[in-house]
Amino acid sequence: MSYSGGLDTTVAISLLKERLKAEIITVTVDVGQKEDFEKIEETALKVGAIKHYLIDAKNEFLGNYVLPCIKMNCLYEEQYPLGTALARPLIAKKVVEIAKKEGANAIAHGSTSKGNDQVRFDLTIMAEVPDKQIITPVRKWRLTREWELSYAKKKGIPIKNIHASFSIDENLWSRSIEGDVIDDATKKPPESAFEWTVPIDKTPSTPQKIVIEFKEGVPTAIDGEELSLKEIVTNLNKIGGTHGIGRIDMIENRLVGLKSREVYEAPAATILIASHKELEKMVYTPREYRFKRTIDQMWSDLVYQGLWHEPLRKTLQQTGENMNKWVSGAITLELYKGNIIINGRYSKYSLYDEKKADYNKGWYPTEEEAVGFIRIWGFHSLDSYWKRGE
Amino acid sequence: MSYSGGLDTTVAISLLKERLKAEIITVTVDVGQKEDFEKIEETALKVGAIKHYLIDAKNEFLGNYVLPCIKMNCLYEEQYPLGTALARPLIAKKVVEIAKKEGANAIAHGSTSKGNDQVRFDLTIMAEVPDKQIITPVRKWRLTREWELSYAKKKGIPIKNIHASFSIDENLWSRSIEGDVIDDATKKPPESAFEWTVPIDKTPSTPQKIVIEFKEGVPTAIDGEELSLKEIVTNLNKIGGTHGIGRIDMIENRLVGLKSREVYEAPAATILIASHKELEKMVYTPREYRFKRTIDQMWSDLVYQGLWHEPLRKTLQQTGENMNKWVSGAITLELYKGNIIINGRYSKYSLYDEKKADYNKGWYPTEEEAVGFIRIWGFHSLDSYWKRGE
Amino acid sequence: MSYSGGLDTTVAISLLKERLKAEIITVTVDVGQKEDFEKIEETALKVGAIKHYLIDAKNEFLGNYVLPCIKMNCLYEEQYPLGTALARPLIAKKVVEIAKKEGANAIAHGSTSKGNDQVRFDLTIMAEVPDKQIITPVRKWRLTREWELSYAKKKGIPIKNIHASFSIDENLWSRSIEGDVIDDATKKPPESAFEWTVPIDKTPSTPQKIVIEFKEGVPTAIDGEELSLKEIVTNLNKIGGTHGIGRIDMIENRLVGLKSREVYEAPAATILIASHKELEKMVYTPREYRFKRTIDQMWSDLVYQGLWHEPLRKTLQQTGENMNKWVSGAITLELYKGNIIINGRYSKYSLYDEKKADYNKGWYPTEEEAVGFIRIWGFHSLDSYWKRGE
Amino acid sequence: MSYSGGLDTTVAISLLKERLKAEIITVTVDVGQKEDFEKIEETALKVGAIKHYLIDAKNEFLGNYVLPCIKMNCLYEEQYPLGTALARPLIAKKVVEIAKKEGANAIAHGSTSKGNDQVRFDLTIMAEVPDKQIITPVRKWRLTREWELSYAKKKGIPIKNIHASFSIDENLWSRSIEGDVIDDATKKPPESAFEWTVPIDKTPSTPQKIVIEFKEGVPTAIDGEELSLKEIVTNLNKIGGTHGIGRIDMIENRLVGLKSREVYEAPAATILIASHKELEKMVYTPREYRFKRTIDQMWSDLVYQGLWHEPLRKTLQQTGENMNKWVSGAITLELYKGNIIINGRYSKYSLYDEKKADYNKGWYPTEEEAVGFIRIWGFHSLDSYWKRGE
Repeated sequence: MSYSGGLDTTVAISLLKERLKAEIITVTVDVGQKEDFEKIEETALKVGAIKHYLIDAKNEFLGNYVLPCIKMNCLYEEQYPLGTALARPLIAKKVVEIAKKEGANAIAHGSTSKGNDQVRFDLTIMAEVPDKQIITPVRKWRLTREWELSYAKKKGIPIKNIHASFSIDENLWSRSIEGDVIDDATKKPPESAFEWTVPIDKTPSTPQKIVIEFKEGVPTAIDGEELSLKEIVTNLNKIGGTHGIGRIDMIENRLVGLKSREVYEAPAATILIASHKELEKMVYTPREYRFKRTIDQMWSDLVYQGLWHEPLRKTLQQTGENMNKWVSGAITLELYKGNIIINGRYSKYSLYDEKKADYNKGWYPTEEEAVGFIRIWGFHSLDSYWKRGE
Repeated sequence: MSYSGGLDTTVAISLLKERLKAEIITVTVDVGQKEDFEKIEETALKVGAIKHYLIDAKNEFLGNYVLPCIKMNCLYEEQYPLGTALARPLIAKKVVEIAKKEGANAIAHGSTSKGNDQVRFDLTIMAEVPDKQIITPVRKWRLTREWELSYAKKKGIPIKNIHASFSIDENLWSRSIEGDVIDDATKKPPESAFEWTVPIDKTPSTPQKIVIEFKEGVPTAIDGEELSLKEIVTNLNKIGGTHGIGRIDMIENRLVGLKSREVYEAPAATILIASHKELEKMVYTPREYRFKRTIDQMWSDLVYQGLWHEPLRKTLQQTGENMNKWVSGAITLELYKGNIIINGRYSKYSLYDEKKADYNKGWYPTEEEAVGFIRIWGFHSLDSYWKRGE
Repeated sequence: MSYSGGLDTTVAISLLKERLKAEIITVTVDVGQKEDFEKIEETALKVGAIKHYLIDAKNEFLGNYVLPCIKMNCLYEEQYPLGTALARPLIAKKVVEIAKKEGANAIAHGSTSKGNDQVRFDLTIMAEVPDKQIITPVRKWRLTREWELSYAKKKGIPIKNIHASFSIDENLWSRSIEGDVIDDATKKPPESAFEWTVPIDKTPSTPQKIVIEFKEGVPTAIDGEELSLKEIVTNLNKIGGTHGIGRIDMIENRLVGLKSREVYEAPAATILIASHKELEKMVYTPREYRFKRTIDQMWSDLVYQGLWHEPLRKTLQQTGENMNKWVSGAITLELYKGNIIINGRYSKYSLYDEKKADYNKGWYPTEEEAVGFIRIWGFHSLDSYWKRGE
Repeated sequence: MSYSGGLDTTVAISLLKERLKAEIITVTVDVGQKEDFEKIEETALKVGAIKHYLIDAKNEFLGNYVLPCIKMNCLYEEQYPLGTALARPLIAKKVVEIAKKEGANAIAHGSTSKGNDQVRFDLTIMAEVPDKQIITPVRKWRLTREWELSYAKKKGIPIKNIHASFSIDENLWSRSIEGDVIDDATKKPPESAFEWTVPIDKTPSTPQKIVIEFKEGVPTAIDGEELSLKEIVTNLNKIGGTHGIGRIDMIENRLVGLKSREVYEAPAATILIASHKELEKMVYTPREYRFKRTIDQMWSDLVYQGLWHEPLRKTLQQTGENMNKWVSGAITLELYKGNIIINGRYSKYSLYDEKKADYNKGWYPTEEEAVGFIRIWGFHSLDSYWKRGE
């Protein structure tokens, strides 16, 4: 069973044992969430798991999920950098690996029937082990938070954050905050919802200037210092958070019908995607730029919608990776009071040429050349305007 | 001749008279630029125009150009709200009206051969009066700033802002800043480039909360007070500017080949488009949302590229206007330190339903229903995954 | 209950009565299928319906479903003109009307759980009467053809076409043939599958020339004779069928997972869509043409996928109808041996101008104008080619 | 100079010598046109060329231009398989190679200022040798056919096909026919326009069945016999032509403003693209299919529009080639009286599964699963329908 250590999955261990007489092996996949993994193991075993695995998947998460996300400027509906959506197929894949190794009859996870996560978990499990049964206690028995709390109390199951008002999902790339007062879309989320980011009125009073370097779309250095992607993401989460960057508050189209109001914190994602897009603007032709934006959005939709195994996801990603061949260079930015201010960009593949763009220097079409262009460019449009009289 | 009062067009009056022995009627179209129009008239006549017109086109600009721009969330390449691009076809149309009334043989404007504006001017003039000659002194005689300055000096032509380092174009909707040190894309634009917006370190230390109301896509009120579009735009330019909102610094794909580095100030445009998009997110189905974004971009491209008369521009706009039927409601936002923070949204057509989205309340698919959805949703993808083994 | 008179729905009457003790009112909607409607009524009542309605919806089908389909050049996956998909929401709507009038508790239809039709029926019923129960005997009780036949035999239920090997659905616009040997996609469908179209070796040995006129996208006349849409469709089905036109054999992506192999006959649809597209090519600018093709495909997908009530369907259709304002003129074609050969086209809004296109006459860009266009047109592309060295 | 042996380029040799005192080296690139190349050389030298090259580029044409075209189902505006458009960048490239080798100062070609070919030639030459001058006698001196004929007569220049009424361009992949009576779009092209295809009333009275095999998108065999692409194209042109297949008559949007009426013959292209698309339908998921069609059209537009060097052309092609990995299998078809009738398809990667699709066999969603899918699928659409009341 995929085990997060939260209320849903902790109650699930007990219920699966009780109702299905199951022997449960729990798997916690570390994708960078700030958790006490020893405590999690302890709880799992205490509540009834016969064995527990902790899998460190941080590097795989960064290399195979977060990095493509950067290259594809992944923003679902222009805002959400897909943190949870990216991690689910990886978590499911790791759980499947353990299930195979242990010869499990079934695989369980804690999703409800109303969210996107069930789609991401189920489809990955079905893709890898189509014949294994999937058990989802919360969805199957329609467990509510209230019921779970009273059950836990009755059974003496230890629950952390018993007073938590929000439902949180966290990994290296982003922190998702759902539920409770956030469901009221007419109100601002309370400050207590945030952990990674400082409110703007408490951020430093001077801007922080940083330079981010990319090599073929991969962020490789900050301020001239070469760093691993893990270091870059970790640093930018910290620096960005300090400057109040990366709070996202949106109305989102969930896959499973419904719109939801979601709040995210993702300082590194916000900074890296903004920088990466800026560099793309400098090195792509207008046609490349428009096409890339189209496939960026398609990729983000597929990942959000649980279709990690759709072959088009892979095709789009491969295409995007090919196009990232030219995305090398450096972006200078100021982080200040919640703003990412692009201060400069440089690339050896830059198609921007100061001399060409200057109205007073360099290459100039002659008047006749310019007029030739304009006439031919507008020919069809004007022709129809004249013919139709409108 | 379309006359702005700047160096290019002032020198042009003199040159047209001198070289082509032309009788020149100048037309200045007021689209909200902050100018001394009396002074402009005075200069035109002094340099040699036989007659001068000042046309107040502010309301037409707002109603027929700015308003569709809001409804189409007009951002060229995701950043530029099209101020100059929108005004050009209107200015050209007004100049054509005067030319017809006055029976002019030719129409002149001040564009160069390297920019987008010549396309916008020429195509509008050609659309309306295909047989009238178009004269573009700067483009025709390849005038440079340096040459113009020395010519003006020699001829005693009064030039305002003689020390201006930037090329500025301004109207109600935005202020464009080009040229000089801005052409160096590796550097931050100097503070002197900005007039409408306060730098973030000088903005108020407390957020300003405002509520913007829309009726069928049209902004109609601020903080409950019904206002004309002109008042709304003017107010938001002021309020937004005070909070450092609406500075845009971008690498832009000019139509006429070339990339250019452009800087804009557009506080009202930035606020209104952000609010309008937010409301659309609340009332559109996911399919509507995606389609609308697509036509928004197509419309923005056409307008930027001088194709105001392309029939598809009209079709897209009509479609967007139909879809705006549902964009009624209110957006609450905080303007603070350069940030537009959406604090709340409300619409009677909202498809967001707090009760439906809550994981613990309201409608729930059963497990079998959810699984049915997931299986059918992922069917084709998994089928290919199994068949292909990847 | 929506009643076709076929095996599934006839058995369903009996089963609903027997198992659910229901009082059944049957509704047959006439959308142009060639049936003995008296016989259908007789059977319904004999098997146990307490009342039967026959609704003539042919004109509504033509005006509100077929006509938009023509204007949107409706071809699902480039081949299928959507006959069945178009009729389903109309049939469901009519059944709902009767259900409301009769105060029925539930609405039944004969769809299976594997096809597209259940989606089209269910969503229309849910849209119109969200609180009424939907009963689908074949899906609910997983009835197979074999079981139904033996049940019918046992109960003495009269079944027409008892030896039918194919599953047929027919209306004015097309005839769908599914099942049996057709499921083998490696083989040609047998000649016995076809009823509307003559095999090519038996068609007339001389071509038939016809002229189809359109007014704002609506077909209005054949060979100069003004006809109703019903007459036009009926005539073209006959004439086209005689010449072997309109046989469609395709691999189709069903909505409900799965690919299926489908065979259709649709002579009028094939001829009208081909003619309508040809006229559009003549009157649209290249940008209009490309956009129209995109929304044509989107519209066709939505209709096929049961999303008649998706607001984007209506938006696309409205857009397409606006664009059809210019689709007036005449197309001359030859029907011959399965081919539709376009012989000529004429429109007063034609943007084709013989004189302009001729290499030896009319308007010519000068060399400098042409070169100006070419340079600016290719600028970005060549620039990147030079910079990247590939 | 790129030399075809036709009127334009033959006159051009003489004029270039006469007016520019140029030493001319002629290059004829063999891309499969049926010409007497010895005669062409003879004429070139006779009229004044100092040297002549004949370059056999047939294999390069097939491998690097025709093959991608097949993989991208290249049909410009759904009809034209791009024969001439594909050959131009190759011809220009070969001429550039000779120009470099010979140290030519300038490169000449025979395009007019009104067609697409000048864009294709110029951009390829500019891409490869940006500093070399391009001379285009017909465009430069605005030569008309009439003037050329009288000049040729005067100078004793031998002209083949002096009575030719059409302008023809031919290569392995297609034959383009333009001009003369064809410019009248209201009339059928005369039978004399065609050389590769037999009119339908003269084609064989029995169908010809053939099986075409593809390996990763490449056609590799006909009727079980492995053949080179050259053999396949040549054979299918012959077989297809015999059966009247591949006549294309269309209104086409030329790049350089204007619509034109074009007639083509392309039996092999028509058959190969139809077969290739059919196979793609069988092996692609619906998402892959829709995306592939989109990039197919984008690629075709770029190639038609002379943008062979646009990096997006390469990106799209690379993407298409990756997707062709799965396009292996066989298509059985009947060629008969102008029709290509698909009779069967087979692929080991087929996603069509007879057993799954059968309504009476195999996997079935339960009623609840199906209903779950339908509800969630239609959720947003119905929700808006209810909220909006329309």
